[in-house]
Amino acid sequence: MKLRVDLLPHGNYSDTVLVIDVLRATTTAVTYLERGAESLLLTSSPDVALSLKWQPGVHDDAGEAVRNEQYLLGGERGGLAIPGFDFGNSPQEASQQNFTGKTIIMNTTNGTAAAHIAAQSGSRVLLASLTNAHAAARRAKALAVEEIAIVCAGTDGRVGLEDVYAAGVIAEYLLALGELSVDDGARIALTLRRSAGNPLEALSSSQHGQTLEKLGLGEDVRYAAQVSESTLVPVMSEVQDIEGALRFVAAT
Amino acid sequence: MKLRVDLLPHGNYSDTVLVIDVLRATTTAVTYLERGAESLLLTSSPDVALSLKWQPGVHDDAGEAVRNEQYLLGGERGGLAIPGFDFGNSPQEASQQNFTGKTIIMNTTNGTAAAHIAAQSGSRVLLASLTNAHAAARRAKALAVEEIAIVCAGTDGRVGLEDVYAAGVIAEYLLALGELSVDDGARIALTLRRSAGNPLEALSSSQHGQTLEKLGLGEDVRYAAQVSESTLVPVMSEVQDIEGALRFVAAT
Ligand SMILES: [Ca+2]
Ligand SMILES: [Ca+2]
Ligand SMILES: [Ca+2]
Repeated sequence: MKLRVDLLPHGNYSDTVLVIDVLRATTTAVTYLERGAESLLLTSSPDVALSLKWQPGVHDDAGEAVRNEQYLLGGERGGLAIPGFDFGNSPQEASQQNFTGKTIIMNTTNGTAAAHIAAQSGSRVLLASLTNAHAAARRAKALAVEEIAIVCAGTDGRVGLEDVYAAGVIAEYLLALGELSVDDGARIALTLRRSAGNPLEALSSSQHGQTLEKLGLGEDVRYAAQVSESTLVPVMSEVQDIEGALRFVAAT
Repeated sequence: MKLRVDLLPHGNYSDTVLVIDVLRATTTAVTYLERGAESLLLTSSPDVALSLKWQPGVHDDAGEAVRNEQYLLGGERGGLAIPGFDFGNSPQEASQQNFTGKTIIMNTTNGTAAAHIAAQSGSRVLLASLTNAHAAARRAKALAVEEIAIVCAGTDGRVGLEDVYAAGVIAEYLLALGELSVDDGARIALTLRRSAGNPLEALSSSQHGQTLEKLGLGEDVRYAAQVSESTLVPVMSEVQDIEGALRFVAAT
């Protein structure tokens, strides 16, 4: 079994892919499912998300469009909520909500794009964060045939220390589950994990962690640093029925 | 002064850029200058290089095209020499030659592409390897105004441990030369340098190092692992007069 870690999304996947965007998309995705969401739709653009917000061709007495009740929109650009979305991309905020029966439509700067790159060639795509690291590692090991690829979303084409650190945590778990040949990216992630101190230190010292702190979103950094608190792993559904959106549900 | 390390070429440079392709383009480039080459022309494609090989419009009695005597062509695809080139991309082979008065036209899979990306936005571009690491660090520090960017060429869009290790060596030298704010990429490169053992171990254990070993080019890996043996730093000339080629000369 091969373990490959892409420190930035690359493509050309052949088997099982774990997508990581610790700050904050994949942490928020896990939290949505923890809080009862039935499924997630990761869209390739904000427009795809906004188009799903309204029931097609339905208007109320005042001629206003009518919301698609099952859908809530969560997303960010530059760390702040997208106009017309119900939520930003805060896992800490999401952890206070009840999403029972809802489908959350997500669009973020880096995480959803990375998921779409993974889905273009990967056979199975899972969303991983520090908060579901152990469950994600076990699920990937169970599903993979010959290769597990971990994809770090990074920030606008630049490597993010927080994603590489999380990839190192997951790589560590995978090594404990059995024999793996590792590539250069995996060796770099493992080296970082083993020398970078505790998770909170790694995340809060990362460039994006410091950006979130300055935006007053330090709570999200602390939330995202909780390792293996959740056993839920968002997995890409076999059936994909909405153009420009990838459906994820909790792996069972 | 900021230090930024791109673990893969990214672009958007504003100041001084050090391009690293330890296995093997920037190691070979330094060796060409060590062996007397007057200048290097890094081309964006093999065709640009091949077009410079012949004197335009000149034929011998037999009607054959006539070589441009000042130019020699060095380059590789998949580690092997490009048809029509005089040399592959072996620094060890180059170290046995005498290139006095010659201009070497280079084209390689990753290194020359990274130099072109750097040149698109960087003000000053230098070629760095382990073999000229200290000289390259000092030159970059002397030239930079507010930011030094180290660009790791990587291999076909995948991070290469050998380039990140070399970036860590150069980052270490730069830190010794004065106060620097470092980005995530720099922290990862420094962490790898400090925990990855000696240079030969890092290079020969890297994926590309192992590929070269299998191609019978292990000598090049050992040659490339010699840290700071050369004081020559290829620097991009102010004047660029050949379309699709970047001229580099030894910094004086
Ligand atoms: Ca992120
Ligand atoms: Ca907790
Ligand atoms: Ca290389």
